[in-house]
Amino acid sequence: MAEPACTAALAPGATIGILGGGQLGRMLAMAAARLGLKTHVYSDESGPAFDVATEVRRGAYDDWDALADFGRSVQVVTYEFENVPLATANHLAEIRPVRPAPQALAVSQDRLTEKEFLSGLGVPVAPFASTSCPADIAKALQSFGAPSILKSRRFGYDGKGQVTLEPGADVAAAFDAIGKAPAILEKRLSFARELSVIAVRSIKGSLAFYDIPCNTHENGILRRSVVPSGLPPAVQTEAHKFAACIANALDYVGVLAVELFDLGPTSRQNERLVVNEIAPRVHNSGHWTIDACAISQFESHVRAIAGWPLGCTARHSDAEMQNLIGPEALDWQNLASVPRHCLHLYGKREARVGRKMGHVTRLDSLSEQPV
Amino acid sequence: MAEPACTAALAPGATIGILGGGQLGRMLAMAAARLGLKTHVYSDESGPAFDVATEVRRGAYDDWDALADFGRSVQVVTYEFENVPLATANHLAEIRPVRPAPQALAVSQDRLTEKEFLSGLGVPVAPFASTSCPADIAKALQSFGAPSILKSRRFGYDGKGQVTLEPGADVAAAFDAIGKAPAILEKRLSFARELSVIAVRSIKGSLAFYDIPCNTHENGILRRSVVPSGLPPAVQTEAHKFAACIANALDYVGVLAVELFDLGPTSRQNERLVVNEIAPRVHNSGHWTIDACAISQFESHVRAIAGWPLGCTARHSDAEMQNLIGPEALDWQNLASVPRHCLHLYGKREARVGRKMGHVTRLDSLSEQPV
Repeated sequence: MAEPACTAALAPGATIGILGGGQLGRMLAMAAARLGLKTHVYSDESGPAFDVATEVRRGAYDDWDALADFGRSVQVVTYEFENVPLATANHLAEIRPVRPAPQALAVSQDRLTEKEFLSGLGVPVAPFASTSCPADIAKALQSFGAPSILKSRRFGYDGKGQVTLEPGADVAAAFDAIGKAPAILEKRLSFARELSVIAVRSIKGSLAFYDIPCNTHENGILRRSVVPSGLPPAVQTEAHKFAACIANALDYVGVLAVELFDLGPTSRQNERLVVNEIAPRVHNSGHWTIDACAISQFESHVRAIAGWPLGCTARHSDAEMQNLIGPEALDWQNLASVPRHCLHLYGKREARVGRKMGHVTRLDSLSEQPV
Repeated sequence: MAEPACTAALAPGATIGILGGGQLGRMLAMAAARLGLKTHVYSDESGPAFDVATEVRRGAYDDWDALADFGRSVQVVTYEFENVPLATANHLAEIRPVRPAPQALAVSQDRLTEKEFLSGLGVPVAPFASTSCPADIAKALQSFGAPSILKSRRFGYDGKGQVTLEPGADVAAAFDAIGKAPAILEKRLSFARELSVIAVRSIKGSLAFYDIPCNTHENGILRRSVVPSGLPPAVQTEAHKFAACIANALDYVGVLAVELFDLGPTSRQNERLVVNEIAPRVHNSGHWTIDACAISQFESHVRAIAGWPLGCTARHSDAEMQNLIGPEALDWQNLASVPRHCLHLYGKREARVGRKMGHVTRLDSLSEQPV
């Protein structure tokens, strides 16, 4: 039987359940430990979070008995990746509070649902259309024009499940390339740069925001996040408003990442930003908060889901975070020698190509007072 | 058979063995995890470090087989408290490198050995004498005058095993109060304040220092550490010289804390500082480095014992660290709400009187460029 939703704060010594054993789970576990909270990680394979969690359990995401055991051993459940099966989250929600609520997963796991949700809120998104066959794609492409991007509705991250359609593209080949999956076609906007809002919302609905980083991607993977972004304060406020609107609509609890396109200063001020996608979790573009803020995005997430006061999201330093991808992490001895660089390695055994192995955050004195 | 001393750096994925399961071990384990290193904690009782270590083992410090198993499971051994039995450290040193070397324990476990070692190096210490009976104490007291402090040679920390002898004190009662143990009588200096040097020395002998905090004690327990201390640069350099001299003499590897009395600006510049005692480990007065430096004392210790580059010890913020002792930690909800305060709780179950339960570090903008 479902327990009544409880808004009381978890006392130090309580245990937070984390679905997923990757580096985000690892950094969540370390943030929880800072506050005297224990963690129990559940994942279908062992990973970086297993090294630092108080307790770990390997199990399938559809092993209902194992999940129930796990649920009963913790006081609240959260997740570190948005492809947690919805049935898994719903099963656990019968046993313990799941934060953010499974609804956030439902929205962000399906690009069509997500886009319809966002545009329904009046949040600006790129023109999009639902597609399930080459004819749909061709029709939408004609409407939006090339270049456009075909994105599978489900299981896309780090640029996977996406094909760009240039003028004269073979629509059938693109349909094959995404595995003939249900998809959306989305007009590719000509943007100046990418930004993200890292927001956190408490159980009681209060909101806080980190400074907005400017993000650079390479091969569909985040390469670099920089704060400050130099975004005018009024535009930052606009971005925060979008994130607040989304978080409130979902009655969201925890850290929410909202990825944005910045169309640049030449467009009209209130039409400058477009939301690309949301992630219902701590986010790679917020890793700099570990070293540049008194309270990191990971601690903010833990505080929110544990019913604690959110705390202060101000930063004390300028920061540039760079991901260490694949064999780049093998250069750890040199990376460890650079002054004012904070090196983070995730303890992954194999430095496979395209794999996020760690990150480095360079700290600099504040160049401007954070907004 | 002992392995040859190895100065090669441990690669990420290697395991650091930690003797002791308290909060210092906990923060060491978290620092190791940041660098992709695993930890194995060995302790005679479970404690705060058990929640975050990759592996844990409960065992007696004289269970030679268990210790040998533990030693073989790790690549290097360190310790988080200076009362690790010397025989334990020596036993492990036959199996794996122990850093800092057991010699550092031998010196710091015995106040007489420590004082003789320090004065032998020409490092200024308070006048002291070895005592083993009331007559010795009376004689030394007559020589130094009251007030003086009777300190048992072994197992003293947080003010335990100490009695102050005021004028007219009952020498026999004082001898009883320290359990009739071998002791030293030490002249109580009239000092302006207490300071500490947190130094780190690499396997190859390079040295780095954190800014010197000013420390306040209450009931023999550290209450507060503040940086900057306002100590003139020339005096800071003098303090660093003492720490360097001590670390070099011990061929020390890791973080070394040197507690100092500052006799105040009225005394002659080069006679202003007196060394009180040393601790061959990370130190409570260095906890502010977690939040105010790119690289904390814990990470510096891990880097040193793992043969990594030491990294930069500069701080980016002014800081004031305050210990949460006993029931003070029960106020965690309010403590978590104060802006720019970094809250750390150690996960201890019982908030016993006098027990260090956590700490809070307040960050402020740099008031001056660190020296």
